[in-house]
Amino acid sequence: MRDLSADAKLMSLNTATLGPKRSLKDAVEGCLRHGIGGISPWRDKIAEAGLDEAARMIKRAGLSVTGVCRGGMFPAADAEGRRCALEDNRRAVDEAAALDSSCLVFVVGGLPPGSKDLKDARAQVEDGLAATLEYARPAGVRLAIEPLHPMYAADRACVNTLGQALDICDRLGQGIGVAVDVYHVWWDPDLDRQIARAGRDGRLYAYHLCDWMVPTTDLLLDRGMMGDGVIDLPAIRRTMEAAGYDGFCEVEIFSANRWWPKTIDEILGAMVARGKTCI
Amino acid sequence: MRDLSADAKLMSLNTATLGPKRSLKDAVEGCLRHGIGGISPWRDKIAEAGLDEAARMIKRAGLSVTGVCRGGMFPAADAEGRRCALEDNRRAVDEAAALDSSCLVFVVGGLPPGSKDLKDARAQVEDGLAATLEYARPAGVRLAIEPLHPMYAADRACVNTLGQALDICDRLGQGIGVAVDVYHVWWDPDLDRQIARAGRDGRLYAYHLCDWMVPTTDLLLDRGMMGDGVIDLPAIRRTMEAAGYDGFCEVEIFSANRWWPKTIDEILGAMVARGKTCI
Repeated sequence: MRDLSADAKLMSLNTATLGPKRSLKDAVEGCLRHGIGGISPWRDKIAEAGLDEAARMIKRAGLSVTGVCRGGMFPAADAEGRRCALEDNRRAVDEAAALDSSCLVFVVGGLPPGSKDLKDARAQVEDGLAATLEYARPAGVRLAIEPLHPMYAADRACVNTLGQALDICDRLGQGIGVAVDVYHVWWDPDLDRQIARAGRDGRLYAYHLCDWMVPTTDLLLDRGMMGDGVIDLPAIRRTMEAAGYDGFCEVEIFSANRWWPKTIDEILGAMVARGKTCI
Repeated sequence: MRDLSADAKLMSLNTATLGPKRSLKDAVEGCLRHGIGGISPWRDKIAEAGLDEAARMIKRAGLSVTGVCRGGMFPAADAEGRRCALEDNRRAVDEAAALDSSCLVFVVGGLPPGSKDLKDARAQVEDGLAATLEYARPAGVRLAIEPLHPMYAADRACVNTLGQALDICDRLGQGIGVAVDVYHVWWDPDLDRQIARAGRDGRLYAYHLCDWMVPTTDLLLDRGMMGDGVIDLPAIRRTMEAAGYDGFCEVEIFSANRWWPKTIDEILGAMVARGKTCI
């Protein structure tokens, strides 16, 4: 397993970790101050900065872009909704290309309004990924399906295990892989086997870190800083690296009450300290 | 698929549906008033009534006992903790036997305090189930593992999919099966296949119903009444019955804000009405 205790060059900041009010510029400058080597911007932050300026800013700072968040949200109630989703996903591919991102991360979407048909939603997701992949391959952008925790199956993502995501990858072929986020997969009894499978197939595109708090008081906005929860983070990283993963450790923490209220330097200071000791 | 629209004889009331303040007597009398054919008591309600009186009361009412909730909570930080857990589980078996219950339902437990070792917790669960099974077989009590939603992996149950539960059953042999609760399994891409497997092996001991609300505002106490959420309940029952399940439909709803504040007759009236039309 790689020794990450010396510095934060292999860490990446997912902009969500700073909360919704900080800008991409705040994030980039924070990475520079704290020696963090990578960044993974959400698209609203890219849009705020402007795509060209975002690309310039990140390049000038010498940061690696470990992902763009996010494509997806494919299932829709009608054909017009599906068309709009595909169009938006092509724009996301363009942005990932412009930022020279390692991948475009997908939160695939859940049930369309009024629907209880999970199988249909899953079929729509696969169709949407297939169409987006055709657009992404010539652009040189890799698509990373992020399986989300089953508690988001209804409203955020109906791809809920690594095995399910890899089955989709197998059917769609080259240029598509997975983003493994410990928050979403740590509980999975099949995790080790599926990480090994993903590695064997060259599909480990991203690795996201945070922690699972006990108790968890909100389904969305109560994720923990690495070390504060119950996930055995070193064990999962060991499995990832044994499977061939040699990329960044991206930190993505949605925490409305514990972390977002803190200053940027408090958040990034903790992230770097924990990155050296807890992951 | 069975026609359940005529009456509530094949419905069962899990006492948790009435909230923590109602007694077993309240629950039994409510079932009689509403023509509900089964009951599944939690052990605190059995203890309040006294085991003998609980058994008499239920028998006199002519109710089938579709489960006793709950055994489990095996993982512990030390040998003394594990011994206490086993002892408590043997008492639970005795209670299930005294009530002539169809099964004893298991919420197996999560991580012991301070532990991040999910594999060890899972091993402790399997050891605990094996020991309890030896005690339960001669008593004629069937053990039903209830796989809990992955969001409870840390603090309630580290058995989180039907497939994982059935793998344990395969290793432990006869007299152990599963309680399928739609709340915990509805998202599982492997659900149909695992229900069929459980049916083939004669391991479908119980079927629990409620609904998944969007949004869900609390991880534990915001379950919905059947029909109010997004779970395709008829589709899951069809799969259960195609796999051979011919038992009760047990309603178990933890709902601190929506349902528990209502009167018993409001809750049971809704439960019966929805049972006839939504499941």
